[in-house]
Amino acid sequence: MNETTATLRWEGGVDGHLMLLDQTRLPLDVVEVPCRTVEEAWDAIKRLVVRGAPAIGVAAAYGVCLSIKNGEAAVYDVVEACRYLATSRPTAVNLFWALSRMRRVAEAPTATSGPALAEALLAEARAIHDEDREMCAAMGRHGADLVADLPEGVGILTHCNAGALATGGDGSGLSPVFELARRGKRPRVWVDETRPLLQGARLTAWELMQRGIDCTLICDSMAAHVMRAGKVQAIFVGADRIAANGDAANKIGTYGVAVLAEAHGIPLYVVAPTSTIDMTLATGAEIPIEERAAEEVTEGFGRRTAPAGVRVYNPAFDVTPYRLIKAIITERGVFKPK
Amino acid sequence: MNETTATLRWEGGVDGHLMLLDQTRLPLDVVEVPCRTVEEAWDAIKRLVVRGAPAIGVAAAYGVCLSIKNGEAAVYDVVEACRYLATSRPTAVNLFWALSRMRRVAEAPTATSGPALAEALLAEARAIHDEDREMCAAMGRHGADLVADLPEGVGILTHCNAGALATGGDGSGLSPVFELARRGKRPRVWVDETRPLLQGARLTAWELMQRGIDCTLICDSMAAHVMRAGKVQAIFVGADRIAANGDAANKIGTYGVAVLAEAHGIPLYVVAPTSTIDMTLATGAEIPIEERAAEEVTEGFGRRTAPAGVRVYNPAFDVTPYRLIKAIITERGVFKPK
Repeated sequence: MNETTATLRWEGGVDGHLMLLDQTRLPLDVVEVPCRTVEEAWDAIKRLVVRGAPAIGVAAAYGVCLSIKNGEAAVYDVVEACRYLATSRPTAVNLFWALSRMRRVAEAPTATSGPALAEALLAEARAIHDEDREMCAAMGRHGADLVADLPEGVGILTHCNAGALATGGDGSGLSPVFELARRGKRPRVWVDETRPLLQGARLTAWELMQRGIDCTLICDSMAAHVMRAGKVQAIFVGADRIAANGDAANKIGTYGVAVLAEAHGIPLYVVAPTSTIDMTLATGAEIPIEERAAEEVTEGFGRRTAPAGVRVYNPAFDVTPYRLIKAIITERGVFKPK
Repeated sequence: MNETTATLRWEGGVDGHLMLLDQTRLPLDVVEVPCRTVEEAWDAIKRLVVRGAPAIGVAAAYGVCLSIKNGEAAVYDVVEACRYLATSRPTAVNLFWALSRMRRVAEAPTATSGPALAEALLAEARAIHDEDREMCAAMGRHGADLVADLPEGVGILTHCNAGALATGGDGSGLSPVFELARRGKRPRVWVDETRPLLQGARLTAWELMQRGIDCTLICDSMAAHVMRAGKVQAIFVGADRIAANGDAANKIGTYGVAVLAEAHGIPLYVVAPTSTIDMTLATGAEIPIEERAAEEVTEGFGRRTAPAGVRVYNPAFDVTPYRLIKAIITERGVFKPK
């Protein structure tokens, strides 16, 4: 991606603003939307203009910088912005992790309201962004190393979007795929469309095609059939929050993919920066699962496709128990959950 | 359903025509379309105006009657109509079964072209339709008996539509649900939306709501999460073709549901009339699987939701191996595949 199709970028100095690639309009329209206030950043996260746990964290960090007025940051406003942005989405822990880093800047013993705090906040947000880029690259190397023995043309299945659009860098779950492509392994990617919001069809397929990587779009319900046909050698997915025992929350449908993977003897790897790990939660049972509006299911394709008044259950995430995860790939290395 | 919302019905005598409830327009529009020629019947089957293995069989039988001209049937035309209608869809064996019954009428030693053959053909089509109604009722009783020990409010999951809209009667997979409701068991049905064509969202939810049965619509990718939460006690699905060893082809996604069912200790029942069993095929590996157009996945509901030019794999069916099927429920009783 070039500068104008970056997932997110900060434009200008301390009085600048956040630019987000509007992921609700991909792949048909490639347009950026500016966020000039904390409220606009909150709304963009809520509406999934920006999504993906690492990208949400980076966007929220820049979002805090939108509380800067006339080159000056006020401690109270920064803390309030952190509190407010934390209410945008409940599941991805990177959001809270990034916001607590920003709050620590404002609550440091030496911090006082003023221009220096504004500069420190923007520097911290940029650092979070830069670190995310580096973490993505490291996850890509670690993940590609893990499947280095697989032959050229290796079949990889992924669910949802854990690519450059989900992070400040090259992706979490897709980063090993990009690295495999760089190493000449010619990966063939099976892309789950990922209902209800079709992040696989709209975002992952788009990213892979932009980079010339072989990909085939399937409905989520086809993954089992493709696995049984022997077309998948490894599965890479991202995560929104990982509990201390290795249970991982990710986009709804990941748990089902993990059960299918085990049944077919295919390793499933969760790829996520360590900021996704929430050591305060012993197991995945404690991870809050966001439920979203019924209309995402009943009118997600631009036209109503279910009877009026039908009851809908629409959890945005599910939890994959650690025993179904072959390894968790982080920027610091590979861990076997136990 | 009343007369004007029957899945399919024959209007008039030997020179009458077939009326089909247009399932491509449900649930928003409840409209019938007439078929007055063999070609129109072929097109309606191909376009899924009528779908569901048993309903396809009944529609094809009536479709043969559309070769009757001015009250007379010609043996050559009947045989040709049977040959032609058999090319409409490849997977459901009920289609070939019904057409071979119709062809036998025309090829009987005593059969000659004329008005008597016309009457015999319409009588045979009506018999196929009547038998289908009776088979549905019997499958419902057998299926409900199997889960009679489960408590009131039993959670049942189904995939695609195997209801009254898929048959000439009360359904295959849904018939036990309707019977359980009649017996006061208050079943709670989890309805897989069933991508790509959303037969679950559009048809099954509509049927269940019409009959006042408790139902909740989910995306296919949510079924695993719902099973893990303990909300499903039994799974009922239909079938399009069953091999001699019990392997069953059904709507794409059924195989994945079956793997998930086994992982969660939930029995999966395949409900289908014996006409669905194809004893000429030793195993499911021999069942031809229809692949359909990419646009069903990329622009199924009026708006494109995937990048232009993306490669798509769109098999309409998958095969569930017999070992994942707790029992096959037919009109003649319950069989354990082996």
